[in-house]
Order: sequence, then structure tokens, then C-alpha cells
Amino acid sequence: MTKRMFVGLDVGGTSMKAGVVDDAGRVLASASLPTEAHHGQEFGLERMCETIRQAVADAGLKMDDIAAIGVATPGTMDIPAGLILDPPNLRPWQNVPVRAHIHKVFGLPTAFQNDANAAALGEFWIGAGTDAHSMVLFTLGTGVGGGIIIGGMVVQGEHSHGAELGHMKIEMTRPRQCGCGRWGCLEAYASATAVVKRTLDALDAGEEKSSLRGTRDLTAHVVFDAADAGDALAERIVEETAYYLAVGTTNMLHIIDPDMVVFGGGMIAAGDHFLNRIRKHVKELAFPVPAEKTQLCFATLGVDAGFIGAAACGRQLVSERSSA
Amino acid sequence: MTKRMFVGLDVGGTSMKAGVVDDAGRVLASASLPTEAHHGQEFGLERMCETIRQAVADAGLKMDDIAAIGVATPGTMDIPAGLILDPPNLRPWQNVPVRAHIHKVFGLPTAFQNDANAAALGEFWIGAGTDAHSMVLFTLGTGVGGGIIIGGMVVQGEHSHGAELGHMKIEMTRPRQCGCGRWGCLEAYASATAVVKRTLDALDAGEEKSSLRGTRDLTAHVVFDAADAGDALAERIVEETAYYLAVGTTNMLHIIDPDMVVFGGGMIAAGDHFLNRIRKHVKELAFPVPAEKTQLCFATLGVDAGFIGAAACGRQLVSERSSA
Repeated sequence: MTKRMFVGLDVGGTSMKAGVVDDAGRVLASASLPTEAHHGQEFGLERMCETIRQAVADAGLKMDDIAAIGVATPGTMDIPAGLILDPPNLRPWQNVPVRAHIHKVFGLPTAFQNDANAAALGEFWIGAGTDAHSMVLFTLGTGVGGGIIIGGMVVQGEHSHGAELGHMKIEMTRPRQCGCGRWGCLEAYASATAVVKRTLDALDAGEEKSSLRGTRDLTAHVVFDAADAGDALAERIVEETAYYLAVGTTNMLHIIDPDMVVFGGGMIAAGDHFLNRIRKHVKELAFPVPAEKTQLCFATLGVDAGFIGAAACGRQLVSERSSA
Repeated sequence: MTKRMFVGLDVGGTSMKAGVVDDAGRVLASASLPTEAHHGQEFGLERMCETIRQAVADAGLKMDDIAAIGVATPGTMDIPAGLILDPPNLRPWQNVPVRAHIHKVFGLPTAFQNDANAAALGEFWIGAGTDAHSMVLFTLGTGVGGGIIIGGMVVQGEHSHGAELGHMKIEMTRPRQCGCGRWGCLEAYASATAVVKRTLDALDAGEEKSSLRGTRDLTAHVVFDAADAGDALAERIVEETAYYLAVGTTNMLHIIDPDMVVFGGGMIAAGDHFLNRIRKHVKELAFPVPAEKTQLCFATLGVDAGFIGAAACGRQLVSERSSA
């Protein structure tokens, strides 16, 4: 019998999570360890192996039972080369040969992918996008990430910059500066960080009375809660955030024209009310046919999308090989 | 011996052009006839057949020598159904069963595609994109169209709205109205129509002295010529047009990340100087790796890209079938 168990590993700035996933996308076990990037990349590579081993042990399996491994990391990266290049969230790592190392240690087919791309493949495989033929994912967290799935495959681009959806420009006249240093990016408008910044800017401008004035440790969550509680400024910020995301979504409807756009990441805690605001604006902004027919919904796998999608990348590697 | 001759037909608002293309993309003959859409769609369908027959005759061939046909038309359309729906450039046509009709008349495998998508496939096959692995085409004419090629295939979308690149939104604060009725679309900034409109708006605003003031029948061509001759207002309009196109290009670098972006359509008569302006802005706007590595260039097939690409669609149909 062919082995049909896969390990996915999702490496984040704070922690990394590995999971064992079967051929139907069921998670048998998962394990999480702190990344501690400050200990350096040799430590980091060993920590990756340790997390993978622990997940496999927790599933009651041995490495021999695993058909392939997939590893997802934040960028910057060279996906075909299997390298993390100079990741802002994993300082001081540089030019880390992730795929080669994992492959050498375990002797298994090993895939390597951007974390948001992997999350998109995970949602497509076994999450919100199960019924979709093609799908776009926006991840709404500290930044805005993205993944595009066409023909069952990740659109990773020729230079590992595919689906950097947070960095599509949506404003020229009065562009906000993005965390990437450039101007007018969607991320500068619609990330959790941007929600806080736009709120603070509005408070600084003294535009409105608000219960948020003087709030310590303002977060996007606090702003969304204040909007629900009727705070006018928070309400405006939330409404504008939905509009900005609708502009980004409309662009994807007019460029990729998927049958589903999925929103994931911490900000979807804002709930269905927020999703309905995005939907309303998309109906106004997009061409009638995609506006009517494209499903907009929330991701369903939560933080597990990354390792499940990484496992899916490993699974594709083996499927491609066996069909080649 | 397998027949490896293909006919492509590109139906435009003014004329339609058919060509016979061999398996290497060489054009053996082509024929053009006026579309005369006002005569109605029955007339139009017969005119399509007539144009195809004439091209085949001009190539010294018979329909028996043809392996497949491809037809490209402007939208709106339902590509999988083979229908033109409600095309603004082909009034009063509505719900025209193009593919079924052509297939019935000639009894040959018949592909149907959007004209800009077909042009992209044509350039990818035998034009500017011959060496590209993936490619984005912007067509710069009365409107701004587009085509995206990934994995050798057209990204046509789930609702025939893939690569409507002229309708990505690049401005929210002070959006110009687009011909589509919506706001802030790239086409409202960077089409030939938009160049004229922006020039007229600037003249109306009395911003600058310009040799263009009072020019009758102002065209984008006249504006580009005036810029070359040193007219300050025309120079500003051209420079801004390059900037707008660079914003749209940057978005494609961050969404699709192709290894080539090709500009086609009448406006590329503006020449290398204009292309270099776009390149300069993309270098500033995009992430360093795609900014450095992505080739930006002009299309090479001119108006023939449409029928050559349509033929390529027919060719793919037969190749898919024979490999399936």
C-alpha cells in the first residue's frame, strides 16, 4: 500500500507548527514550538526538524509512515531554490536552505512554499474552498497576505512574488505609506496595523469624539468592538476598512475572476457583519457578473491552514511525481 | 499525417480578420472584411464564415486541410458557452452562439476566446513572449485590455472576466470615471481615450500654455507627438500616462509575478522612449526582485496578434484532445 500520510510545517515569527495530515486532509496530530529566531538559523533548522518529529510521534507514527513533507515560511524567499532569503519576521536568518536541510535530514520528498500561498492551498483543499474551482485568499493580520489557486495549483510567480496581494496599489493621489516602505499598498489601508494607525491618525486629527481617545494598547480588535458598541469614529474606520478590502477584492475579480474569495487571518474575528459590508461594496464596485456570482467567505481552518496547506504542497509533489 | 493547419478569426467592431496559421505559428494567408454589425448577428455569423473561407482560399488550401478553428471576439461574453452576450462594440448583437455556429458550418473543433486573451496567447506563442514562461499583456487602445498566460494557458476566469486589466482600480480619493461607468479604473487613466480626456481637462483648467489648445480632433497620437516636440502640457500628460501604466504593471508584478509584461495596441506607436518611462517608474514602485527581473517590452505581432492567438486557441483544443 502506498504511504499516504504527509507532514506540513508552518514556520512563523513567534512559533512554528507541524501537523500530520492524511490523504483526505484530516489532521491526525499537530505540535507547536517557539521559533526563537534570535538563536540563529542553525538552531531554527533543528527546531523545524524537532517540531516535525514531535508531530509524527504525537500521531503515533514513525517517519517511515510519511510520504512527503511540506514547509511553509514567510518571505522573502526563493521558492524554486527552497531558500528563505531575508525574512523581516525571522531576523537574523539569511539565505536559509530550508528545503535542502529538511530533505537531507528526513530523506523524504520535501516541498517549500510561501506561508500565505500554502494557507490558500490548505483552504482550497479542505477548508472554505473545498467546492471552489479557483480561489483567492486574503490573509488579514499584522499585514495583508494572499494566495491564488488556479487549476488546483498555487500561483507562486516567476520570482516568488505571486499573490503579494497586500502590495497591490489602490491609491495614487493621497497614498498611505506601507510597512514595505512603498506607497498606496492595500496593506497600508486594510491590515490590523493599518486599522490602528488610521484610528490614531483620526484621533490625532481630532475629527470626532470617540470612546477610543486615550485607549492604551489600541488594537484592531478594540476598534471593531467599539464600532459594534456604536462609537462613530470606530464605525467609520471599520466601514472604510471594508471598502478598501472590497477594492482589493474587486481587483481580484477583474484580474483572476475566481469563483471564491476567502478572507482569513486574525481580523476575521470581526464577524459576518464585517463580511457583509465587504460584500455590499463589491456589488457596487465590480462588474455585474462576477459581483453576482463570486462567493466571498471566511476561511475555516484558522491558524492550521498554514501547516495543512504545507502538507498539501508535499502531497502535490508526490502526486506529480507518481503521475509523471 | 496529422493536419496541422489552423484558422484564427478576430472579430472587431470595425472589421474582422481571419488567418491561416501553421503549427509553428507562421501565417500562410489572411483576409479581412468589414464587420458591419448594424446588419445584425445573422449577417455577422455569415460574415465570419465568409472571412474564414476567404483566408483558407487565399492560403491555397481547402477546409479539409484545417485541423481546428479559433474565434476571438470582444466581450461581454460567456467563454465556456461559446457566446457573445451583449458586446458594446458589436451593437445590436446579443447572445450570439458563435462557437456553435462556426462548429456547425465547418464541422471542425472550434475554440472561442476573448480577443485580448487571444492576443496574449498569440504574443506568447510566436510574438514578444516566445521566450517567456508566463506573461501579462496590456492592450493600449481606445480602452485598456489585458491577457494573462500562466502554464501556457489563458487565465480566462470562472465568469469570463479574467484579465480585465483595464478595470483594476488604482485610485480611490479622486477617481476618474471609466467608460464602464465605474470609478478609478486603470482604463480611465491610461487608454488613448483617457489621454485625450486628461489633456482636454488640463486645457479646460487653463493650467498651462500648450500648442494643443484649440486643436481639432485631438488624439493620443497628437498628444504624444506634441510631447516629443517639447510641449510642456503634453509632456506632463505622457509622463503621467507612463506612471499610471507603471502602477498597473506593478500590481501585476505583485499579483501574477510573470517573467514578462508586454504592451500592445495602437498606443505603443509612442515608442521606446515611452516604454523606458514605464520601466523607470516600475523600478521605483515594485519590489526589488520582480522590478529587476521582469522584462517589460512591446508586442511584436501588431493587429495580427488576435487572429494568431485565436488560431493558437484552436491548436490547444486539438492538442488537449489528442493528449487526453
